Amino acid sequence: MSEIAKTPKPPYYSVIFTSIRVEGEENSYNEMAQRMAELSAQQKGFLGMEHARSEGLGITICYWETLEAIADWRENVEHKIAQIKGYETFYKTFATRICRVERDNVFERE
Amino acid sequence: MSEIAKTPKPPYYSVIFTSIRVEGEENSYNEMAQRMAELSAQQKGFLGMEHARSEGLGITICYWETLEAIADWRENVEHKIAQIKGYETFYKTFATRICRVERDNVFERE
Repeated sequence: MSEIAKTPKPPYYSVIFTSIRVEGEENSYNEMAQRMAELSAQQKGFLGMEHARSEGLGITICYWETLEAIADWRENVEHKIAQIKGYETFYKTFATRICRVERDNVFERE
Repeated sequence: MSEIAKTPKPPYYSVIFTSIRVEGEENSYNEMAQRMAELSAQQKGFLGMEHARSEGLGITICYWETLEAIADWRENVEHKIAQIKGYETFYKTFATRICRVERDNVFERE
């Protein structure tokens, strides 16, 4: 996941998920995160994902074609179970922000 | 910067800056990044910043009240110089995405 997502011409949508984890539960967390990354990538309207974590702060950004695709993914049963696990076990605090990407610009060194 | 930004009720704006660095130049990069974090936080309309970097991928998200505040910050002279340094020296590739935050949700463990 350590690449810049290749997204189409705007407008499209992003979900910014920023989190601080509870300590421990490393293996079960990583397993869940990996599974959710795979599963989200199979959803209709998925455009890409970017993720980084340092100094305790995790940022995951998912890009989507439409708000409907975001709503469908939110309601996915396996994802729902992961969300509950997130509330109950994994996260000390998190924020979810749903955005409309209005403009973008990509630079690549020759 | 390793905290979740405390933003007001939407709508507001986010600039998602995703980057992969050229190797080396660690000190001068960190100095510039630190200075830009301080300087952006002084701008009118600045709401907050979140940053993480791992496996080579850096994600910095700045939140702003308006598109005008984003445009003003882009035109800031010291920031312009940093942008040129970014193109010339620091980044292998990067993407900038300007978004309107439509909805958000924050969870905090009791």
